Amino acid sequence: MAPGHPAPAIFFLSDYGLVDEFVGVVHAVIQRLVPGVPVIDLTHQVPSFGVVAAARVLERSVPHLGAGVVLAVVDPGVGSERRGVAVEVGIEVGPHWLVGPDNGLLLPAADLLGGPRRAVVLEGVSTFDGRDVFAPAAAHLVGGGSPEALGGPADVATLVALPDGRAEVSVTDGVVTTSVSWVDGYGNVQLAGPVHIWEEAGVVLGATVMVELGGSHGGHRARARRVSAFSSLAPDELGVVLDANGHHALALDRASAASALGGAVSGTEVRVRVVG
Amino acid sequence: MAPGHPAPAIFFLSDYGLVDEFVGVVHAVIQRLVPGVPVIDLTHQVPSFGVVAAARVLERSVPHLGAGVVLAVVDPGVGSERRGVAVEVGIEVGPHWLVGPDNGLLLPAADLLGGPRRAVVLEGVSTFDGRDVFAPAAAHLVGGGSPEALGGPADVATLVALPDGRAEVSVTDGVVTTSVSWVDGYGNVQLAGPVHIWEEAGVVLGATVMVELGGSHGGHRARARRVSAFSSLAPDELGVVLDANGHHALALDRASAASALGGAVSGTEVRVRVVG
Amino acid sequence: MAPGHPAPAIFFLSDYGLVDEFVGVVHAVIQRLVPGVPVIDLTHQVPSFGVVAAARVLERSVPHLGAGVVLAVVDPGVGSERRGVAVEVGIEVGPHWLVGPDNGLLLPAADLLGGPRRAVVLEGVSTFDGRDVFAPAAAHLVGGGSPEALGGPADVATLVALPDGRAEVSVTDGVVTTSVSWVDGYGNVQLAGPVHIWEEAGVVLGATVMVELGGSHGGHRARARRVSAFSSLAPDELGVVLDANGHHALALDRASAASALGGAVSGTEVRVRVVG
Repeated sequence: MAPGHPAPAIFFLSDYGLVDEFVGVVHAVIQRLVPGVPVIDLTHQVPSFGVVAAARVLERSVPHLGAGVVLAVVDPGVGSERRGVAVEVGIEVGPHWLVGPDNGLLLPAADLLGGPRRAVVLEGVSTFDGRDVFAPAAAHLVGGGSPEALGGPADVATLVALPDGRAEVSVTDGVVTTSVSWVDGYGNVQLAGPVHIWEEAGVVLGATVMVELGGSHGGHRARARRVSAFSSLAPDELGVVLDANGHHALALDRASAASALGGAVSGTEVRVRVVG
Repeated sequence: MAPGHPAPAIFFLSDYGLVDEFVGVVHAVIQRLVPGVPVIDLTHQVPSFGVVAAARVLERSVPHLGAGVVLAVVDPGVGSERRGVAVEVGIEVGPHWLVGPDNGLLLPAADLLGGPRRAVVLEGVSTFDGRDVFAPAAAHLVGGGSPEALGGPADVATLVALPDGRAEVSVTDGVVTTSVSWVDGYGNVQLAGPVHIWEEAGVVLGATVMVELGGSHGGHRARARRVSAFSSLAPDELGVVLDANGHHALALDRASAASALGGAVSGTEVRVRVVG
Repeated sequence: MAPGHPAPAIFFLSDYGLVDEFVGVVHAVIQRLVPGVPVIDLTHQVPSFGVVAAARVLERSVPHLGAGVVLAVVDPGVGSERRGVAVEVGIEVGPHWLVGPDNGLLLPAADLLGGPRRAVVLEGVSTFDGRDVFAPAAAHLVGGGSPEALGGPADVATLVALPDGRAEVSVTDGVVTTSVSWVDGYGNVQLAGPVHIWEEAGVVLGATVMVELGGSHGGHRARARRVSAFSSLAPDELGVVLDANGHHALALDRASAASALGGAVSGTEVRVRVVG
């Protein structure tokens, strides 16, 4: 490794779960091909076939990753006509390649990493593409192999985008209309939308807001206070905090806000307005 | 590492689960003894004391592993008279040693790796043999230590085989009588038996079969179509596919065939015959 | 690495769970800062905010760890006034630093490692301290960086101890009064108290004892036999065994003693007396 040249790693995400041996076998294949290259597991417990949830995991993760290759396999279309791809991105710092199915999983993260610069269509097909196609491709690229050896070029404009695109987020008459983008393991409820949306609606430190859930949560309502840290909240007091990914989230101190809100899940509609 | 000499790894399987610190402590012990040797976790979530299920995991995994040592600890007899063993196998490519309890866990994988060539009985006994006996033995062997240092020789003919041996699979009057060998995390239902069995029974691409479950699933029946990929199936259509381990499996596209079949589990009897 | 100088590792414990990407992101941050340093996961599935349970995991683990840094993040007070600390311990063999929140989590393990010798208060605050403060500090220390660069000194006498301290264990009139210190994934029920307590009460190999659970388990009683190994027990026979951490535990052979005892959990009161 040349001085100043960071040691590359493979960053591995899937919906394989941790009960079967799938994750271990992929690690073993990579170890065989490029011994000593670290393989870092982001998570393997996204919901089965949960392409959108997995794309969100990648978006949250990639700003913190070093040099190397993202290997992401959530692949409802395995064995079908859908393409397997390796996508090169334009960023200086961070992973330079993302490898996985061409089903929208990779694009949001690629956009955060400077955008897709070129892509190749991976040759080969298998009922276990992670092991047989994607892992070998990631190993090839992390070892400095030429992308041309993996397959023919793909026009980056033809890469498949997520079907549902971005959540609609708006402010009308002081009401933020948004939706849940993620519920983490602690029950924190992350809301879609950039920080400026919340400023426009007056959701500033110390403000009290009314939160109303839509959809199947039929009008579940709760007051919440915009605070700077979980620990500023009283027991059972709902808060709005800026989370570690720079998004606003509904939270309780040492308890699950999602449960307190009647079981909010990704996609649940949320309306928020300042009441004090 | 000499050129052309692959870097060895330890491939670790257990029923320790991922809640307690057992897996981490074993990793730490190995890191202390042979720093830098990769330890690849196959899975630690086989059912507690599930020797047969774990033996199947090893069988499915070992064809994909590189050089090194398999460390497998599913050990209902820990602390008893059962022996701990290291088994050397005759294969050129892949792991050369398997370490674990002599309870049948290692033998099916050893057979796939060229068969047991010699074995040693590991000295030492502990209520945490994984940490105190098996991991140190695996570290010793992966580092190139002599097996004689670990204990006396065992006649490979005396190694304990799995009590139940192989599933009975047969074809009579065009009916394949087999059983479920594995249900994976997606709910795919792998069936026991070599590929030629299915050809004999006429289960060729495009054929329609009737599947009947036995035992406590009391005659649960369903039609299925032999297809080449999950994605060829209509929604809710049951399929028979060739899985990533070269076995036939009952599957749905993006859904659990095991659930659709009333909760099929490993060992459930299955009869299959062509009906169209 | 100089000969005889063991390769250091980071030993990582948290309550992050394995569903979200938190653990993977922390691994990635460490890989970026100190490429090639092994990060060994002890467990990430202690109960959310379970500082006491996590402190027990560390206590059980540290005697088996090699050189390096313990990174432990169970942090109900994240973002509050609670300090983040790095604690140096006096032991020759094993980890030299423990990094995490100053909430009692680190002290019991530090005591086992020769006791705290000095401490520094980590600068920086974040809603994801594991990623932004603790992991960088652990990486800095494992790479040989000076602790002074991380923050100002803390008097080790001011480090926060666990609120509840040690379980009360006593022997009166031949009755051991103790409590459950841990239920592992197999359902083994570890009891608090040093080995000599059990000798004082006459709980020797072969003795039969009466076990009575208190608290919400309202007088659940069972006979048990002190044996040397699980395998000495008859089916469904409750045993008292010396476990792999040197503590006495209630156990069944290949079954869950905790379930058999009506759901014993950490903290459940237990009284034991010899009856034969």
